[in-house]
Amino acid sequence: MCCGIFLMMYFLLPLLMAPLHVMGENITSKPILVNGTYLNPELGKYHARLRTLSRSCLDIKKKFGVTDDGIYYLTTANGVVYQAYCDMTTAGGGWTLVASVHENNMNGKCTLGDRWSSQQGSDPKRPDGDGTWVNTATFGTVEGATSDDYKNPGYYDIIGEDVSVWHVPNGVQLQQWSNSAILRYHTETKFLKDNGGNLYHLFMKYPLQFGLGECNKDVGPSSPVVYDTGNKEITKNFYGPAIRDQFEPGFVTFRVFNEEKAAMAMCSGLKPTGCHTEYYCIGGGGHFPEEAPRQCGDFTGFDWNGYGTHTEESASKAITEASVLILYR
Amino acid sequence: MCCGIFLMMYFLLPLLMAPLHVMGENITSKPILVNGTYLNPELGKYHARLRTLSRSCLDIKKKFGVTDDGIYYLTTANGVVYQAYCDMTTAGGGWTLVASVHENNMNGKCTLGDRWSSQQGSDPKRPDGDGTWVNTATFGTVEGATSDDYKNPGYYDIIGEDVSVWHVPNGVQLQQWSNSAILRYHTETKFLKDNGGNLYHLFMKYPLQFGLGECNKDVGPSSPVVYDTGNKEITKNFYGPAIRDQFEPGFVTFRVFNEEKAAMAMCSGLKPTGCHTEYYCIGGGGHFPEEAPRQCGDFTGFDWNGYGTHTEESASKAITEASVLILYR
Amino acid sequence: MCCGIFLMMYFLLPLLMAPLHVMGENITSKPILVNGTYLNPELGKYHARLRTLSRSCLDIKKKFGVTDDGIYYLTTANGVVYQAYCDMTTAGGGWTLVASVHENNMNGKCTLGDRWSSQQGSDPKRPDGDGTWVNTATFGTVEGATSDDYKNPGYYDIIGEDVSVWHVPNGVQLQQWSNSAILRYHTETKFLKDNGGNLYHLFMKYPLQFGLGECNKDVGPSSPVVYDTGNKEITKNFYGPAIRDQFEPGFVTFRVFNEEKAAMAMCSGLKPTGCHTEYYCIGGGGHFPEEAPRQCGDFTGFDWNGYGTHTEESASKAITEASVLILYR
Repeated sequence: MCCGIFLMMYFLLPLLMAPLHVMGENITSKPILVNGTYLNPELGKYHARLRTLSRSCLDIKKKFGVTDDGIYYLTTANGVVYQAYCDMTTAGGGWTLVASVHENNMNGKCTLGDRWSSQQGSDPKRPDGDGTWVNTATFGTVEGATSDDYKNPGYYDIIGEDVSVWHVPNGVQLQQWSNSAILRYHTETKFLKDNGGNLYHLFMKYPLQFGLGECNKDVGPSSPVVYDTGNKEITKNFYGPAIRDQFEPGFVTFRVFNEEKAAMAMCSGLKPTGCHTEYYCIGGGGHFPEEAPRQCGDFTGFDWNGYGTHTEESASKAITEASVLILYR
Repeated sequence: MCCGIFLMMYFLLPLLMAPLHVMGENITSKPILVNGTYLNPELGKYHARLRTLSRSCLDIKKKFGVTDDGIYYLTTANGVVYQAYCDMTTAGGGWTLVASVHENNMNGKCTLGDRWSSQQGSDPKRPDGDGTWVNTATFGTVEGATSDDYKNPGYYDIIGEDVSVWHVPNGVQLQQWSNSAILRYHTETKFLKDNGGNLYHLFMKYPLQFGLGECNKDVGPSSPVVYDTGNKEITKNFYGPAIRDQFEPGFVTFRVFNEEKAAMAMCSGLKPTGCHTEYYCIGGGGHFPEEAPRQCGDFTGFDWNGYGTHTEESASKAITEASVLILYR
Repeated sequence: MCCGIFLMMYFLLPLLMAPLHVMGENITSKPILVNGTYLNPELGKYHARLRTLSRSCLDIKKKFGVTDDGIYYLTTANGVVYQAYCDMTTAGGGWTLVASVHENNMNGKCTLGDRWSSQQGSDPKRPDGDGTWVNTATFGTVEGATSDDYKNPGYYDIIGEDVSVWHVPNGVQLQQWSNSAILRYHTETKFLKDNGGNLYHLFMKYPLQFGLGECNKDVGPSSPVVYDTGNKEITKNFYGPAIRDQFEPGFVTFRVFNEEKAAMAMCSGLKPTGCHTEYYCIGGGGHFPEEAPRQCGDFTGFDWNGYGTHTEESASKAITEASVLILYR
């Protein structure tokens, strides 16, 4: 029994003792479990989530066989611990939500909230804008991903092979994301492998800067996609009727330039074939010359012929008012 | 003794072992507790706080009998864990601080920092402004609640019955909040029960949008309050002498419109009886027509006749320079 | 054996059990350690880091003998837990990174991102600007410290004696900070002891406000420094040739005024002897009268004779494009 006491003294009490001044009364001598059930179920959930702490949702899936979608703990290589959303269902699961592009004010042209392009107006002196796609600044929260821009450490820390993109109506809450999405797709080409494993490294390789390239010529990585919600036709019809012949749906493309050499980060669900990419590509550098600053912003020129009019070059209200969630696997 | 060894191998060592490369030396074989006292008291406090992990401060109070004010761990329904301030004293305790409305620049009319109205100017095209009252974006920190705007996940996640509001001079630190407050009150009517249990749901029910209603007609929930610091007379005298006959003190009222149909979120400590609510109500939508943008901002038109002059329509310097802390129970 | 079972029931299972609905399968009965090795090494690193939870990196160094640079857990006096970078190497180690001053847009004069001066233009009505140096608002992240402004709770919570300052090129990642720095130094005079132990208290004592003092007269604390990277000559040459006779290198100085009574927070690596401090001091209050707003911003007038031209009053591109990391010990 010496050892039982020894164990209790040295190893067990720490879990149960706590300085009294932290608590209103001495609850620290009470067990936290009775008959294998937590007296505090919230603590049980927390412990369970913490046990699978990993670098990515894919690791959690592989190493621990987790199959439930939801919030898990992740850590960066440096040891920064954060919580992220894991999609453990789509195409085998293991997807980590790392960012969302949310257009908070379509009428604000590179104003506050345009973190994925520029928040300081269209400015040739800032050709790469805020630089969000290629730096390690983070912002927003996972539960706020459809209410505000969001970027977590996984964006630059996770080394993945494929991306999944969800277009979720603004304001929809986490539990309904998957069912409410108006467009969902993922790649299976492992195109990220040749591009550093994530978008942070991809944009290091393909600088997102006004004036650095030509439209239809200096295009970054493009991959065909597999649709989980929607299809090529639906993708096409989200954008303006006048420019539907300027892209091919069924792809996701990164780092393109338009006719005026403005840089755009991502063409979601399609591959440009024309030069007016500002009507169907999002994010980008800090300068959009055509009638500046009219095309400057996270959703560029989606409102060129009026907000959500869905006429000529204008995109539909549905796609204009949906946040673009980006996941890695 | 087999079991003692078994236990140690499988269950106990995890608490004590750690990869050497994490530490400068092998400190992991040392016990973390001696004679029931933590070698690291900070770890003891952390463990104690974590043991009461709950959805709200009221749960912590009820389930664990905690009576000390301070920082505790909370979790949302989805499992997002965060730290919040709990008032375990006032009227039985169990109050969770979920937000603060801080006016960072009374001269800036819907500029940066006016998160509870609009940060992009007074704009009829953005009738609901930044939408902070009705979305799940969060910002700020608990220890910075009197230095910056603050909103934590409890704002939308906690299901409560009553609110408590503290007006604390800007810059006052957490330990002095309660004693330094110039006005403190709480409701006991359980009015949140019929409004979704929190302000997120309340404003879903009563949209905060310019032009959607009439003054004195389309008023949202209003509840009488019990004063913890101050009284009706003191509340009244915080505002401009010219408009003290335009409201009745002793209440807290949500979602009101002024004469020009501008929407305001909260009239703290009173119920409007007149139409010039911009002089004594805070937060709101994104457009304030009268001499726009002069009344646009987190503290609307408190400075109409000069900043802190306390003459005519202008509020006192004291109330203008105090952050409005919002708690749920 | 009664006790073995007793122990397991009450103390051990909590570490291993978890509600099934949290996990895809029942993994909670598996041990988390085998033969003294974590099945999940990330969890092991996390446990090890958590065991040294302290108020500062110096406490971690002293109490636990930690010698590895990296991310550790800290807690404020109120119990707010956060992760911070510890330099355990320089001059005996124990340095906590508490802030970074990052110039995101040299062309933006007190615009968004100028958190250490003003984000609302040069405005005599806001003589103390955003007040960041003297409040408890926090922002940014440790891994984003060279991509964005950064301030953690240690800035106001840690009670230290000396400061260390690193000028790290923007965008350089955490692992390379120390080696990539173009200038690194620390004080050994314990000058913080007489100033409240940190910059939050120092600036309470020496208000950072336009118009409150005279150049070369109302200077705040200044301390000689010991160089870890670079020297006096290198420090001097980072700034404009026309003003190198206006300061003495080999010091760090806080709260100075220029000829027009604009307040500046910090002269990194030097002590002013002239009145044109806007060319070599950073941060400050909210109003810079000379050709306002040209000198208003986190890096004040570093670009007076062109951005990074390194001619006349203009600073070098190297110092203009390096973030200023501030550490306490």
